[in-house]
Formats: sequence, C-alpha cells, structure tokens
Amino acid sequence: MTADLAVDDDAFAAHCRRLLAEGCHGLGVFGTTGEANSLSADERAAALEALVERGVPVDALLPGTGASALTDAVRLTREAVALGVDGVLVLPPFYYKDVSDDGLFAFFAELIERVGDPRLRLYLYHYPRLAGVGFSEALLARLLDAYPAVVAGTKDSSNDAARIERICRALPQLAVFAGTESLLLDTLRWGGAGCISATCNVTAPLAREVHDLEQAGRGEEAAAAQERLAARRAAIEGRPLVPALKAMMAERTGDPAWLTLRPPLDRPSYE
Amino acid sequence: MTADLAVDDDAFAAHCRRLLAEGCHGLGVFGTTGEANSLSADERAAALEALVERGVPVDALLPGTGASALTDAVRLTREAVALGVDGVLVLPPFYYKDVSDDGLFAFFAELIERVGDPRLRLYLYHYPRLAGVGFSEALLARLLDAYPAVVAGTKDSSNDAARIERICRALPQLAVFAGTESLLLDTLRWGGAGCISATCNVTAPLAREVHDLEQAGRGEEAAAAQERLAARRAAIEGRPLVPALKAMMAERTGDPAWLTLRPPLDRPSYE
Repeated sequence: MTADLAVDDDAFAAHCRRLLAEGCHGLGVFGTTGEANSLSADERAAALEALVERGVPVDALLPGTGASALTDAVRLTREAVALGVDGVLVLPPFYYKDVSDDGLFAFFAELIERVGDPRLRLYLYHYPRLAGVGFSEALLARLLDAYPAVVAGTKDSSNDAARIERICRALPQLAVFAGTESLLLDTLRWGGAGCISATCNVTAPLAREVHDLEQAGRGEEAAAAQERLAARRAAIEGRPLVPALKAMMAERTGDPAWLTLRPPLDRPSYE
Repeated sequence: MTADLAVDDDAFAAHCRRLLAEGCHGLGVFGTTGEANSLSADERAAALEALVERGVPVDALLPGTGASALTDAVRLTREAVALGVDGVLVLPPFYYKDVSDDGLFAFFAELIERVGDPRLRLYLYHYPRLAGVGFSEALLARLLDAYPAVVAGTKDSSNDAARIERICRALPQLAVFAGTESLLLDTLRWGGAGCISATCNVTAPLAREVHDLEQAGRGEEAAAAQERLAARRAAIEGRPLVPALKAMMAERTGDPAWLTLRPPLDRPSYE
C-alpha cells in the first residue's frame, strides 16, 4: 500500500515477479493476505489490470474475485476472464452466516450463468474461519456435477487434513490446493494439485523444492524437504499472519512500505 | 427484488412510506434485512438516491453505509451525507476476524476524516453474530471521545440486555437503539433512544404505541403494550429472519415479489 492506503501497483508487480522467480507456479493474488476484501471492486479491477500492464504473465494469475455482493463477484470475475486469466478463486458471499447449501449453490449458479463465458474456470475458496461461511463437501460435489466444465478446483484453508484428503479422493476431477504448505506433500500424495498459501510469500523456494522432488519420484528427499518447510511455516504461525508476513517482507526488501496495511488490519508492531 | 434480482425501487419506496405511516420515526434502510451487503456499492448508492427521488423524506433515513472495504464505506457515507440524511449506520469491516480495537479505530478514524463533512453523524452498528466483528464498549467510548461531534449513536444487535444497559448509562451522549423491539421499553427506561429492528417491518404500530405511552408517562400501559410487542417478536424468531419477514410481507401485501431474495439468502419455502 502507498502512504495514503492505495494499492502500490509497481511494488505489487515487482513482488509478483519475485515470487515467480522464486519458484511459484502461479499467484493467488487478491486473496486474504492481499487484503482484497479491503478494496472496492473498482480498486481490485484496476489493480489486476495494472499487474497485466506491467508484464506479470496473465496465465500465472489466479485472482480472487469473490465478494459479499453477487454483482461485485460477477463483475470482477467477468473482467478477470476477459483479461485472459486461467481461473479465478472465489470466496462464498461472507456477510450472512448460517446460509444453506441451496443459497450458496444459487449464488454460484447465478455467478456462472451471468459471467456466461466458456473460458471461466472457478476455484472455490474455502476459508470458514475468516469468511464465516464455507463449502460443505456435498456442495462442492453438487457444483462440480452441475458445472463440470467450469468448476475446476478448490483452495482449502480449513487446515483439516482429513477433509482435504477426502476431497482429493472423492472429487479427483478437482484441482485441490491445500491452504497451507504444511500439507503440500500430503496433498500431492492424495492426488491434489499443490498448495496456495499466504506464507509461500516467504517460503516459495523450499515449497517448490518439495513439489519438484516429489514429481521426480524422489519421495524420501521430498519428505525431508517437507519437514523443513513445515518447520518454517510453524515458525510464522501464531502471530497475526498478514501483518507478520508484511513485516517479514519489509525486512527482506528493506522497503518500509510493506508496513502500511489498510484498516482494519493493524500495522505490525513487533521488532 | 425484481425477478432478475435487482432492487425494485418503486416497491422499496412504497414500503418505506408504509412504515412511516405505521408509526416508524425513521427507517434503517440498507441494513441486514435490506440485503445491503448483497448489493454492490453502485447499486446501494443508486437505490438510496431512488428513494429520495420518489419522495421518501430524506431526514427519516438512516442508511447503512458500512462495507468490508474502507473505500466503499467512505464513498457510500459521503454520498448519503450529500443527499441530506441525518445519519448513517455503519457496520465494522466484516471480512477479517479477530481484528484489534486499534485496527477498528483506525478504520473509523479514516472514514470520518476522508468523508470530512461536518454534517456527518455516525451510528455504530453492532451485530457480531453476523458481522463476526463488533464494537467493544471500550472502542465505543474511544470513538466517542475522539469524535464527539460525529459519533452520534449505536444500534446494538447483540441481544445482550446487560450490555445495552451499560452503554446507555456509561455513554449518555450516544443515542442507543436496541436491535430488537423486545428491549424497546427497557432501552427507553435506561435512557436509550429506542429500537431499530428488522421485525418492526411488521410490528411498527405496536412498537410506536409502547414508545408513545412511555413518553406520555403512562408507564403501566407502556409495559402492557411491551408485553404484547415482545410476544409478537417472539412468534417470528426462530425462523430464518430475513426470509420469514419477506414471506410475511408477501402475505400482507399480496405481492409475491417479496419472495425474491438475492443469493445467498434463500427464497422462503414455508406456507
């Protein structure tokens, strides 16, 4: 963020390039760590366009386009697809709690039909602790059944290994990403696609190593690397995650702009 | 909502006029029952303007202008104040959970300073069950202390009578509205201003009677009316509130358009 709490487009693009250079296959931009829900729809749309204009490869981007308002989710998704992204990561609408699977199904059916673009690929973003609303396993199956060409995957930030394993095994058509690199190797072995994790902002090279060793059939080395990866993740957990990560980025880059967060998130205050 | 899930401006204005005729002193439009967080900022701004254009008295409106994005809250608040409303009802930003009072204070300080209009009067909307984030009593006091000319009141949907009483007594400068008419008479007797309640969509005449009897010093009659009012409220509770109320409105008006809700809310399905 700039000093006046606007998105710093240049810093954002530079960070994206750094992460790709460090081994990320793709970038889950406009997620929780990216403070997407603290930006207006106009700001999110403009910031995504700014990344593409600055040469961040559009096919590496998996932007978050969820919103509490159906119309915002439709607009952001439509614009992202028009820019040429391979997929979008969509939270459920997160104001009303205790909504039914029928209501959530209706939201996603409207979203898919209103966007009405055969290029649309949806990744369903399950983060019940923050959203207060999540995707039941039955709802995932129902959406996949109704829209098999559109529903492409899920990011599962439940931190529930058993759930992630069940989804990998029950819905092998879905690209399943664990929301934490602590479960990266497990997820790959369950048939999942990998992880999309906030802390990969600082652990990407090691996470990529786990992935590549496993893909190369060097399972024991992958397991050893996974242990180191999980230890690095564990060292970050327990602190408020978004401020903690941004403080680490300020330290790594020497750029104090990383310490500017948009309220309600707090500026990190530890040394 | 119209059949294509847009705001039905004419029906909305007609409902506002009906409620004023039934005894409401004011209208908490764009709250939870009004599905405000299921509308984009553009839709909310246009729908508020449409009410005023249709002759709903602007000084009877207390529109919800909260949003998870600071910039949306600023824009909606600024436009509402420019239209001439006497106050706005503002949720805390509701995506991030476990945010600190410092972070929430910073959000409201930015909001007040960015709107920068001496006519601004803020009513803080405490509904932790749905927002997942609330106003601690210390935060209310701190905001009032920092912005005594702006922070005008609160709507408290905690359903916690002891908390509402404490706030009435500790912060008498605030206009305190209980979020349920079950606590209307109590709140008036604690020095509060009244109630702002979803179910007043169908209980307004009786709620007004309680208010007027109490103001007229006819306390025993007020208490008897309050008992009838609480019984009516209790008869509605226990069902999903927003669909239940809209089903009751469909029945009262004979207009099935009331049964169209925007997802994720479900169309009411009971007889």
